[in-house]
Amino acid sequence: MTGGQVCDNNLHIAEYSTMASKEEVMNIWKSCDCVCFDVDSTVCQDEGIDELAFYMGKGEEVANLTKVAMQGSMTYQESISKRLKILQPSQKDIVEFVTKRPPRLTPGIQELVQKLQDRNVDVYLISGGFVSIITPVANELKIPLTNLIANKLFFYHDGGYAGIDTSVPVCRSGGKPEVIGQLIQKKGYKNLVHVGDGATDMEACPPAHAFIGFGGNQVRDKVRSGSKWFVMDFQEMIDSL
Amino acid sequence: MTGGQVCDNNLHIAEYSTMASKEEVMNIWKSCDCVCFDVDSTVCQDEGIDELAFYMGKGEEVANLTKVAMQGSMTYQESISKRLKILQPSQKDIVEFVTKRPPRLTPGIQELVQKLQDRNVDVYLISGGFVSIITPVANELKIPLTNLIANKLFFYHDGGYAGIDTSVPVCRSGGKPEVIGQLIQKKGYKNLVHVGDGATDMEACPPAHAFIGFGGNQVRDKVRSGSKWFVMDFQEMIDSL
Ligand SMILES: [Mg+2]
Ligand SMILES: [Mg+2]
Repeated sequence: MTGGQVCDNNLHIAEYSTMASKEEVMNIWKSCDCVCFDVDSTVCQDEGIDELAFYMGKGEEVANLTKVAMQGSMTYQESISKRLKILQPSQKDIVEFVTKRPPRLTPGIQELVQKLQDRNVDVYLISGGFVSIITPVANELKIPLTNLIANKLFFYHDGGYAGIDTSVPVCRSGGKPEVIGQLIQKKGYKNLVHVGDGATDMEACPPAHAFIGFGGNQVRDKVRSGSKWFVMDFQEMIDSL
Repeated sequence: MTGGQVCDNNLHIAEYSTMASKEEVMNIWKSCDCVCFDVDSTVCQDEGIDELAFYMGKGEEVANLTKVAMQGSMTYQESISKRLKILQPSQKDIVEFVTKRPPRLTPGIQELVQKLQDRNVDVYLISGGFVSIITPVANELKIPLTNLIANKLFFYHDGGYAGIDTSVPVCRSGGKPEVIGQLIQKKGYKNLVHVGDGATDMEACPPAHAFIGFGGNQVRDKVRSGSKWFVMDFQEMIDSL
C-alpha cells in the first residue's frame, strides 16, 4: 500500500484536499478546449510495441525490457532503441501487423472522443509508440492524422528497418511535456487536459492544465496516488462532461 | 586551357614525368587486387540524381544546384541535402524511376568488370549517389550488393521521404577516402585502384594505391590535368590489363 496509512485527522485533511483538487480538475474537464490522450494502455488496451513483439515472435524478450523501462532504470530513448534493436521491424512486418491485429480500443473511448469532437474540442493522441501502428487507431476514432504525435520509424528503400526519427520529441524522456507545451503555445489552448496511465503522462501536467489518471487497463500505484482525479473507465469522464 | 602553356624544356620534363607516373599507375592496374569505381558519369553515362530530378519534373532546379556543387562552393553534404529537399522523393518515386529508366551503362564497363572478376579482383561501386538507384547497376554488372557503398535514403512507413542516413561516410566531403581507407585496412588490399571522373575521386588516392581519371562521359579539367593516367574509354583499361 502506498501512502495509505494516515491517521484519522490526516485522512480528513487528505480527503478534503483531494476532493478540492479533483473538483478543480473536473471543472477544467467540463470546459476543456483540448484533450490529449496517451495511447498504450489508455486509448488502447495493450502496449503497441509489446503486441508487435509478440507478433514477431520476440514477445518475452521485449516485454522484459518494457518492464525494466517502466521501473525507470533507463531513459525512454534507451529503452525504445533497445527494443527496436531486438525487433528490427521491416515495413512489411508493420503492414502485416496492423492488418492482422486491428487495434483493441478501450471500451468507451469512441463515445468519449465523439462527444468531445461534437463540442469542438480538439483531440490529440500523444504517444511514445509509433505513428505507423497508431494510424489505424486515429482513423477509427476519426482523429485527423495531423493530431497524432508519436514516434516515426525509418525504413530503407527496400523496406528494411533503418532506425527511428530522433527529431520527434516523444522519443525522449520529457517528450510529452514538450509537445503539450508547444501545442499550448501554438494554439493558445486555455484548458488542455491530458489523460493517461503512466508516470510520463502525469509529468506532462504542467504544462497541461489538468491531468486525469486512467486505470482502466493498468493501474500504476504512482499514478493512482499522484493523480488529483483518477478514473477506472471512460464512462466516468463521459458522465462528468 | 589549364596548365597547357609551358615552354619546350618544361614540356619535355612534364612529358617524361607524366609518362613515368602513368607507367607506375599501369603497373598497379595490371596487378590490382581491388578496383573501386565511381558511378555517376563513370560506370553510368549520367548523374543519377539529375536523372531522378528530370523524371520528377524538377530537372533544371536540381541541375543548377549540381553545377554549383561541383564548383566546390558548398560541402557535399549541403549540396545533397539541398537537392533532396527540392525533390523529397518518395519510395514510389524511386521504384518508378528505376523501373522506367534502366541504368545507361558506359560502353565497355560490363566487359571490364567481367574481366576483373574473372581474375578474382574484388570490384566495388563507391558513390555519393543512392543505393536505391544504383542497385540495378550493381545487379547488371554482377557486383554483389555488399560491394555497393553509397548513400541511403530514409522513408516513413507510408513511403514518404524521411531524409538521408548520415552514418554513411559518402554523404560527406572526404567520404570516399574514408571508405577506401577502411577497405584497405579491413581486407588488406595491396593494389587498390580507384576509377572516377570527379575531383572527389582523385582525392581518394591516397589511400587508394592508384587513381585512373575517366573522361568517357565528362572531362573535368582538374581531373585530366591532375591524373597520372587519364583514359577516355574503358577499352584502354581493358587492353592494359
Ligand atoms: Mg500508456
Ligand atoms: Mg562521378
